[in-house]
Amino acid sequence: MNFASDNWAGASERIIDALAAEARRAAPAYGRDPLSEAAAADFGRVFEREVAVFFVATGTAANALSLAALARPAGLIFCHRAAHIITDECSAPEFATGGAKLVGMEGPQAKITPAELAVALGRFPASAVRHGQPAAVSISQTTEFGGVYRSEEIAAIGKVAHDAGLPLHMDGARFANAVAALGVAPADLTWRAGVDVLSFGATKNGAVAAEAIVFFDPGKAANMPFLRQRMGHLLSKGRFVAAQFRAFFADDLWLGLASRANAMAARLAAGLEKSPSARLAFPAEANEVFAFIATEAMESARKAGALFYEWPPDTLPADQQPRSGEALYRLVTSCRTEAVEVDRFLAFMR
Amino acid sequence: MNFASDNWAGASERIIDALAAEARRAAPAYGRDPLSEAAAADFGRVFEREVAVFFVATGTAANALSLAALARPAGLIFCHRAAHIITDECSAPEFATGGAKLVGMEGPQAKITPAELAVALGRFPASAVRHGQPAAVSISQTTEFGGVYRSEEIAAIGKVAHDAGLPLHMDGARFANAVAALGVAPADLTWRAGVDVLSFGATKNGAVAAEAIVFFDPGKAANMPFLRQRMGHLLSKGRFVAAQFRAFFADDLWLGLASRANAMAARLAAGLEKSPSARLAFPAEANEVFAFIATEAMESARKAGALFYEWPPDTLPADQQPRSGEALYRLVTSCRTEAVEVDRFLAFMR
Amino acid sequence: MNFASDNWAGASERIIDALAAEARRAAPAYGRDPLSEAAAADFGRVFEREVAVFFVATGTAANALSLAALARPAGLIFCHRAAHIITDECSAPEFATGGAKLVGMEGPQAKITPAELAVALGRFPASAVRHGQPAAVSISQTTEFGGVYRSEEIAAIGKVAHDAGLPLHMDGARFANAVAALGVAPADLTWRAGVDVLSFGATKNGAVAAEAIVFFDPGKAANMPFLRQRMGHLLSKGRFVAAQFRAFFADDLWLGLASRANAMAARLAAGLEKSPSARLAFPAEANEVFAFIATEAMESARKAGALFYEWPPDTLPADQQPRSGEALYRLVTSCRTEAVEVDRFLAFMR
Amino acid sequence: MNFASDNWAGASERIIDALAAEARRAAPAYGRDPLSEAAAADFGRVFEREVAVFFVATGTAANALSLAALARPAGLIFCHRAAHIITDECSAPEFATGGAKLVGMEGPQAKITPAELAVALGRFPASAVRHGQPAAVSISQTTEFGGVYRSEEIAAIGKVAHDAGLPLHMDGARFANAVAALGVAPADLTWRAGVDVLSFGATKNGAVAAEAIVFFDPGKAANMPFLRQRMGHLLSKGRFVAAQFRAFFADDLWLGLASRANAMAARLAAGLEKSPSARLAFPAEANEVFAFIATEAMESARKAGALFYEWPPDTLPADQQPRSGEALYRLVTSCRTEAVEVDRFLAFMR
Repeated sequence: MNFASDNWAGASERIIDALAAEARRAAPAYGRDPLSEAAAADFGRVFEREVAVFFVATGTAANALSLAALARPAGLIFCHRAAHIITDECSAPEFATGGAKLVGMEGPQAKITPAELAVALGRFPASAVRHGQPAAVSISQTTEFGGVYRSEEIAAIGKVAHDAGLPLHMDGARFANAVAALGVAPADLTWRAGVDVLSFGATKNGAVAAEAIVFFDPGKAANMPFLRQRMGHLLSKGRFVAAQFRAFFADDLWLGLASRANAMAARLAAGLEKSPSARLAFPAEANEVFAFIATEAMESARKAGALFYEWPPDTLPADQQPRSGEALYRLVTSCRTEAVEVDRFLAFMR
Repeated sequence: MNFASDNWAGASERIIDALAAEARRAAPAYGRDPLSEAAAADFGRVFEREVAVFFVATGTAANALSLAALARPAGLIFCHRAAHIITDECSAPEFATGGAKLVGMEGPQAKITPAELAVALGRFPASAVRHGQPAAVSISQTTEFGGVYRSEEIAAIGKVAHDAGLPLHMDGARFANAVAALGVAPADLTWRAGVDVLSFGATKNGAVAAEAIVFFDPGKAANMPFLRQRMGHLLSKGRFVAAQFRAFFADDLWLGLASRANAMAARLAAGLEKSPSARLAFPAEANEVFAFIATEAMESARKAGALFYEWPPDTLPADQQPRSGEALYRLVTSCRTEAVEVDRFLAFMR
Repeated sequence: MNFASDNWAGASERIIDALAAEARRAAPAYGRDPLSEAAAADFGRVFEREVAVFFVATGTAANALSLAALARPAGLIFCHRAAHIITDECSAPEFATGGAKLVGMEGPQAKITPAELAVALGRFPASAVRHGQPAAVSISQTTEFGGVYRSEEIAAIGKVAHDAGLPLHMDGARFANAVAALGVAPADLTWRAGVDVLSFGATKNGAVAAEAIVFFDPGKAANMPFLRQRMGHLLSKGRFVAAQFRAFFADDLWLGLASRANAMAARLAAGLEKSPSARLAFPAEANEVFAFIATEAMESARKAGALFYEWPPDTLPADQQPRSGEALYRLVTSCRTEAVEVDRFLAFMR
Repeated sequence: MNFASDNWAGASERIIDALAAEARRAAPAYGRDPLSEAAAADFGRVFEREVAVFFVATGTAANALSLAALARPAGLIFCHRAAHIITDECSAPEFATGGAKLVGMEGPQAKITPAELAVALGRFPASAVRHGQPAAVSISQTTEFGGVYRSEEIAAIGKVAHDAGLPLHMDGARFANAVAALGVAPADLTWRAGVDVLSFGATKNGAVAAEAIVFFDPGKAANMPFLRQRMGHLLSKGRFVAAQFRAFFADDLWLGLASRANAMAARLAAGLEKSPSARLAFPAEANEVFAFIATEAMESARKAGALFYEWPPDTLPADQQPRSGEALYRLVTSCRTEAVEVDRFLAFMR
């Protein structure tokens, strides 16, 4: 009954096998090896266009470096106020960008909306140097409350951003879960909808440590090799990250892993919806369930070994708060979650 | 005949086995798992004292973050002018420290000497704000020309540093090779000799990606959790780094791997000494051989598949330059180098 | 009828006379001259204790450098959400601190309250590295809505800050106006109430360009000489700043200038209170008047030459917004405002 | 007998008069006033083209911000190893650029040469990410040893820089002295010779505090307003800097002041050349004299009140060192130096 986080899970066997095979070979360091090139080509195939890809060790690095590549002096980065880049990355974006300011916006299920974005941009006219200058817009796919942006939602945000001369970044730590949930082409959720740079995560979806920064316009990536090494993220044996990605994309392993996590979340959400002790805070669109649940029921589950986090309700709107006797909880499923775990947990929710 | 670099080698099987075992388990993320604690305890055992250990993904990160922890505003960091932190880390130390200046010194076989250090420190009196303020001294073990600092050499440098109120950092990307070469206790080469913070590398010695920052005074490490995550180096599945280190230290695997690399370098150096086409530029004290070799002989070897780098001679003193018909080469052995590779290569040196 | 800002005013004649006198002399550069020492001593006298004083060119520099001196990696700085350091300094605090995050709080008349501060601090426990670490609390005296903190209010905030291990910074761009308004000792509004570092401004109060950073514990100022020059704020002819401060403090010129500005604001506020076209948004405690005024009346005044700014109401609480036909305006008086200007302006408010 | 530095001098009366006149007026803050526009127009007239001008408080700020505007991530800035930006600015360039590395070169009288520059650039090929990327070339006019670059020397350096895709920056702290010495148009020493950005100093030449950053291609200056305020260098009463520049340029005051300083240096150098106790280290081309002088003679002068600095000889080549009984001294003249001072000093040199 492990619903603590998808990064508590182990790793896919096929990914470990790929590491083992690579371990027996010698090859050039610093990403100048054939496997790294092949993995980069995989990204081109998956996204149906030429891309520039940079492997890094963590999702925070992918986000911070993406934003650094888009930064302007005294830059303002617009995102949801619950965005991981604001709340959970220990000021890495601020540091990597030389002091950017992250401007948090409201929006349902941790999504920003074109309307909110337009209002926020209006508060920072280019002439007002003292406010700093708008530099980028960032969205999370899936969102911090388990929501999934549709292509047209992304395109609408992308339009507002681009009309203001701003690039659109996507934090795709759980991008695979979104693709699997919507069943659309990765290109439709990214560059065709206006995303300029993507943090593409594999670690939460069965890898050991494999994250990538994807530029959909390779011509904009000229500084990234320098930005990356300057932050200590050029891995000497980078081919071991490449190996993970090759296995990840082979036979659509990545979508299989994400689908399984999503299915387990759906099963969990369906069970909670029927429970008298629980009510969903948001639709469970991918692999995260946010629900208000009776604290008593959750304590019983915890005693039986269930792992999960109570979630601070202050990120929710004022009219969407826990009632007496209940609290907000986050339950995350992963590619290694078993149906029996879900069912055993749900037994405590009766 | 792969003498390009020790980070071109694959990885030890025992390390891959450890990753595979860990992949089948779930455990807390961000280093709050039992394996990470056990690996930290291993460091305490190896160094014979309580230490604070922080895992990161690359050696550049270990160095840059170590120096960031020691930094002062407008800080000056004293090191050899051939030091990896100056020449090969893409300004990561400068970036991580908020703009430190690295002051390069001369010294034989890329070692700094207490006398040179004292002279350099004398040029930056505390009263001269315009010069910045001395902040740290950094040495590389092994050095960039394959030298090994003895304990007493380190202690003498440490004394000059500490007398000036400066901490001593050691870039230990090849620390294992130094320990194996000297056959002394790791403690004797570090804290007992005055080293305050160590970048401890395993990647060049058989790991996939495993580096650690070691504070010998844990009380000085309070800011490191923040510095590390701010640079994107807190790995979510950090236990996979811990697993590598556990395997690395078990049954002294690390010293076995390093000894093998060193032995192969010794075999190579001995062969070159006998060759009419070659003369050693420096004693081969660990797993790197720097030699002046006839370019013709090297071209023959290259055509037969030998891998190696010609080395820019401008890092050598003016009186130690290649003669006509020869060039400076670096030949690196690794834990996976075979004796037959060495011998086959030496056959071209006749 | 110039109510645009107190930094639109010229400069006091006595300050210009001091510059002229100094221009005829030669003296050591970079603050190592007798006048700079004498000015520093003036600060000690004014604040009734030994202080460390650093002259800089702008208030933004004073704030950013003060916060840089208090910074911690991934630091969080707590202030009102309308604070100048958040809204108007072009990310200078973020830049100077290496990427600090400014956490804006609510509070009446742009004052933070001990209770709000305690709540905000509670959201960032030291164990949660991902949030960054609390580093400092900053308040503005006078506040961005013309309010004045009393000694006991500051002391209560200082206690919450110090209990959490955080230093208290005061942005005193209009510190003189606060001292003049309350008629208390400068020490009572600063170190005796728990302020650790003060940005002390003279430019808005009759100087040409004279700002100072004041450390009430000189032992904490060791890094400031380096921080200051690293930001380009060590003036070579620093004695011309010292000369301004000497004139500023001589015969309490500074309090006379501030009192005049305050008196003009009081006259203006009293007139507006009687006007059917206006209602004060806040009490005019120092030299700034914030009022909701009929836009029609203001347009008439503007046509007649009145200078002022309409103020964005989004910094006000939702229940304190302009009504139909009126807008929020800021009217600032200075040491050079004439009573006839005020009266002429008020004539348009009938 | 004050030869300590030109920034020990007071200020020109006409500049003080301009400040006094401005003090009696009110005008918009932050450079949006008519005087600031007029001063900017003066720069256009002086340089015979449209330029973008930014006023700042110090020469270090002008240099650091200029380089920040030209920076690239992990950037390398090429300059003479004696350049003020390396030796005397407390890492402000490193800080403002987010960690650039300054690469010092050799060259006669602190001038860099096209040949040296080409060699240095060759050491940092674009493909070698680990070295960082070349970002700019910077020269000092006049040089740190009192030399003056001729137009054709600048053009030759500019060509090497531009061929490598690098902009050319000039630190013009004593630009006026160079213009006065050569009697050529300011345009010939800057943009016509390939200079892209100029730090233009007035403070050492009779101003109180007036420095400017000049972009010869205004289209490249888009980020400068943000960079400047982010470093705290947007002065609220910026018109007082503008006033200094207006007076500086009126009736070519600036060239008159510089010519006087130069003439005094020439008188001093001529006297030293005739002296048995002294020999010039370099030709005195502007307002600085570097000479090897008998320490005994200098001690006598010092006792009689002469002010000057002994200069560290380690910035000189090995074959140009002081002989026994003498030391290297720097003697600086200013716009306020009197011929009688020079002659009185020379009397000690017999």
